[in-house]
Amino acid sequence: MSRTTGELAAVLHVRLIGDATVEITSIASIASAQSGDLVFVDDPRFLAAAKRCLASAIIAGEFAALDKMPEVERSGEERSPNNAFADKPSSNSAVANQPTHGDTSSEKPLLIAAEPRLAFARATGWLTETLPATFAVHPSAIVHATAQLDPSVTVDEGAIIRANVHVAANTILGAGCVVGPNVVIGRDCHIYPNVTIYPGTTIQDRVIIHAGAVLGSDGFGYVRDRGTGRYEKFPQIGRLVIEDDVEVGANSTIDRGALDETRIRRGTKIDNLVHVGHNVEVGEDVVIAAQTGLSGSAVVEKNVVIGGQVGIADHVRIEEGAILGAQSGIPSKKVIRGKGIIFWGTPARPIKQYLKELAQLARLSKRN
Amino acid sequence: MSRTTGELAAVLHVRLIGDATVEITSIASIASAQSGDLVFVDDPRFLAAAKRCLASAIIAGEFAALDKMPEVERSGEERSPNNAFADKPSSNSAVANQPTHGDTSSEKPLLIAAEPRLAFARATGWLTETLPATFAVHPSAIVHATAQLDPSVTVDEGAIIRANVHVAANTILGAGCVVGPNVVIGRDCHIYPNVTIYPGTTIQDRVIIHAGAVLGSDGFGYVRDRGTGRYEKFPQIGRLVIEDDVEVGANSTIDRGALDETRIRRGTKIDNLVHVGHNVEVGEDVVIAAQTGLSGSAVVEKNVVIGGQVGIADHVRIEEGAILGAQSGIPSKKVIRGKGIIFWGTPARPIKQYLKELAQLARLSKRN
Amino acid sequence: MSRTTGELAAVLHVRLIGDATVEITSIASIASAQSGDLVFVDDPRFLAAAKRCLASAIIAGEFAALDKMPEVERSGEERSPNNAFADKPSSNSAVANQPTHGDTSSEKPLLIAAEPRLAFARATGWLTETLPATFAVHPSAIVHATAQLDPSVTVDEGAIIRANVHVAANTILGAGCVVGPNVVIGRDCHIYPNVTIYPGTTIQDRVIIHAGAVLGSDGFGYVRDRGTGRYEKFPQIGRLVIEDDVEVGANSTIDRGALDETRIRRGTKIDNLVHVGHNVEVGEDVVIAAQTGLSGSAVVEKNVVIGGQVGIADHVRIEEGAILGAQSGIPSKKVIRGKGIIFWGTPARPIKQYLKELAQLARLSKRN
Repeated sequence: MSRTTGELAAVLHVRLIGDATVEITSIASIASAQSGDLVFVDDPRFLAAAKRCLASAIIAGEFAALDKMPEVERSGEERSPNNAFADKPSSNSAVANQPTHGDTSSEKPLLIAAEPRLAFARATGWLTETLPATFAVHPSAIVHATAQLDPSVTVDEGAIIRANVHVAANTILGAGCVVGPNVVIGRDCHIYPNVTIYPGTTIQDRVIIHAGAVLGSDGFGYVRDRGTGRYEKFPQIGRLVIEDDVEVGANSTIDRGALDETRIRRGTKIDNLVHVGHNVEVGEDVVIAAQTGLSGSAVVEKNVVIGGQVGIADHVRIEEGAILGAQSGIPSKKVIRGKGIIFWGTPARPIKQYLKELAQLARLSKRN
Repeated sequence: MSRTTGELAAVLHVRLIGDATVEITSIASIASAQSGDLVFVDDPRFLAAAKRCLASAIIAGEFAALDKMPEVERSGEERSPNNAFADKPSSNSAVANQPTHGDTSSEKPLLIAAEPRLAFARATGWLTETLPATFAVHPSAIVHATAQLDPSVTVDEGAIIRANVHVAANTILGAGCVVGPNVVIGRDCHIYPNVTIYPGTTIQDRVIIHAGAVLGSDGFGYVRDRGTGRYEKFPQIGRLVIEDDVEVGANSTIDRGALDETRIRRGTKIDNLVHVGHNVEVGEDVVIAAQTGLSGSAVVEKNVVIGGQVGIADHVRIEEGAILGAQSGIPSKKVIRGKGIIFWGTPARPIKQYLKELAQLARLSKRN
Repeated sequence: MSRTTGELAAVLHVRLIGDATVEITSIASIASAQSGDLVFVDDPRFLAAAKRCLASAIIAGEFAALDKMPEVERSGEERSPNNAFADKPSSNSAVANQPTHGDTSSEKPLLIAAEPRLAFARATGWLTETLPATFAVHPSAIVHATAQLDPSVTVDEGAIIRANVHVAANTILGAGCVVGPNVVIGRDCHIYPNVTIYPGTTIQDRVIIHAGAVLGSDGFGYVRDRGTGRYEKFPQIGRLVIEDDVEVGANSTIDRGALDETRIRRGTKIDNLVHVGHNVEVGEDVVIAAQTGLSGSAVVEKNVVIGGQVGIADHVRIEEGAILGAQSGIPSKKVIRGKGIIFWGTPARPIKQYLKELAQLARLSKRN
């Protein structure tokens, strides 16, 4: 569907400078934009490129409104920003550095937002919101007689829905998904193809699960028989609860509790190939990057940010708002405390200390 | 099904103190136990909580029998145990520290076991052992005419069984599994949904494979043409053998041998998202935690314990009983030797040395 | 099919010493070879074992031709090679060290190749090239009416092909694969079972995708609303392009671009459980070992070699021909430069420096 720049300004609660009747049909990057596209700029260095590109409108920060003002003392614009990104220009910044030819395109409507990236993300939703469903339950899907699906649910080709499953309104279950008995799935969820959901798992509303993810699998728990030296399976009969607005990446695995539950709280975002062990509790609005692993009974409090390939051992507690750098490791039972503090290394320590140690080590090896 | 405490004591070979006629229908944690549940205690600190909870019986260590004796000189009970877990009480220990109200519940039958956790694990089996199969081969499964399945085999919805596959008694093949030609699967195996098994793989008895795992895929082997600089595929035509009682976690991948075989020996337990390369040999009763990777031709001897996210390079040998700490790395062709010794770091060294180095580094960085 | 040693010599462009009429039907390792098999030797130490084994012919380096010469001053042969592999003989070398009994088998035809491993890899192709397809589109596959499949395409059981998909000649789509709308797949590709390909992905010719891989999934991008503290999804609507001759391992995941594209260039080989984030660009002939992760917008130039479990943060650039040791980590926005230079550690530094630092650290910890 399309919307005018005026409509977009209204729904996004942003200020429009320019023509309110321009039709916007899609979004794009500055490099690939075509007529009808909306682009965004949250860095003044890319504003000129955005104005030159083929897009029909621009979402930008307040700096763009300022840019409309007479050019007085804007010496800052041509500064050489001292971040690493600026030192090694990407293709985007390369475009930005091209000379301007004529610049008639500066007449594009500007949508001035306090948080242009956020406004752009929301605009995407407004532009694409009414995707018509092609079918309800595909004839090749196998839905158990006792499963209760809201009539607005989509079940794609070959999906398997077992006994006593409940699925609420507008949820999409992808092709080849297997949903075990007694699973409960909320409304407006999107489960991509080939996902496996073990029995008894609960998924709340607006949850996105990417292809190949496995939810509610057995935890890794064994008891060793001291006599024979063999491992016997410790019961893994608990459950998994995934709360509202969680997203789980492709091929990630989240184990159910051994006896009780594993829980991923509201708004948490999990990348691809992440492992979450049994009895883990992840708080609200946590971000976990790809290939990170959380061992059994770990607790991650709200607003924590976890980089890629981080290893969190069993019974660890990461307290509210801590930041774990990529590849860092937290040994068994440790507590990491420090809102907004970055921890790095194995065992993880505050980044300041870690960098000092690295520098010290480099110095020593040169001396000898 | 349910069993009486008397029957459980008999099948578990443990000593019963109390009523032998109490019906037990399920197991639970102390926190979630209901009437009819069996709980276990292997730490004296949790005994009081177990007695207070709603469970109908308790499996416990000898200390619980002792607890029935007149209270003389048990000063040890209130000690502050010097492990990290005790310092940061979990929710369980928090329960344990609540004051006792009345304590009439101490009349619960006690099953006194030398290894209470093991007895509890086995009790689970006794309580749940007769799950009735709902069907043999689901009509939507596609089984090749030449495949030979024991009549007691279950094949779930949409599973694909190719030519010359053999499957022995009581094995369950999950929905959406794809079993390639000439695969042999033993008895009492459970293959969860969406598992892919490449041609020629052999799986012995009582093996559990969790959802999304890939068994017998091509190893990562190429030959570079010095002329063109291009990589050409080296043949990956060997096979994979998984012996009795192995468990493989969700979305793990185990490659087949290049020309010969990859072998996982009896009783080895592999967690989620683990990678095992071609020609690897893993011995008996090895434990491999999540996201660990074993490169081509690595050998892991029996009773080795490998933490999460460990990296084992090609042609490495981990000798019997060694323990590799989480995230440690073993460079190409190295041999790790030391029964019961923990190795840590990259390159992995005995933990004592590693910790000394870390301490030294921290001291130095403070000095300067 | 079978070929004579003479035919093989001709198609492989190698020199034949001995009988040109011996029938070869398969390939094998020295340890497992049977009559009719071809084996290869690229290390003189294994030549004797190859001659003794049951194989019918041997591909070997020039040293094998030399071996036919009178034995004069070949003192090098019995040397104790100073690489670690030789110090710990594998089962292969153990075979090589057995005494020779009679050695009548030395009459086997020898195919003398400049690069014996490469010739062997190619021989495999010649011996197995005409696998007859068993069916075109299996009746259980669901192919959308608008999809365009070349008549020579194989679609296995239960595969789902959506609207406007294009598949070129001889490509095999495995059982349970889900191919989203507008996907384009080239000729001679092999997509193994249970692979999920998101809408709009392009796969060029001769690409191999192993089971469970996910191609074109959403990148990990969110915008945080400063007001509520909640993360909102940043649009992930770009595409993924996989060029000719790429191989992707089992359960690997490659995200599509956020607004533009993720691209894997010609000839690159990716192992199992690898993660490639959105907007990443991987150059030609790159090798990426298992469980490595590439974060958003990373650039890897051609001929780079990346070990297992390497972590590459966002906006990193790995320049042409650099080698990243296993488990190394490259922090955000860094540039790694050095053709043929090995980098190791986190943050990755030239291996020489890293090893010096490790040695220094070990020395210090002993001193104190």
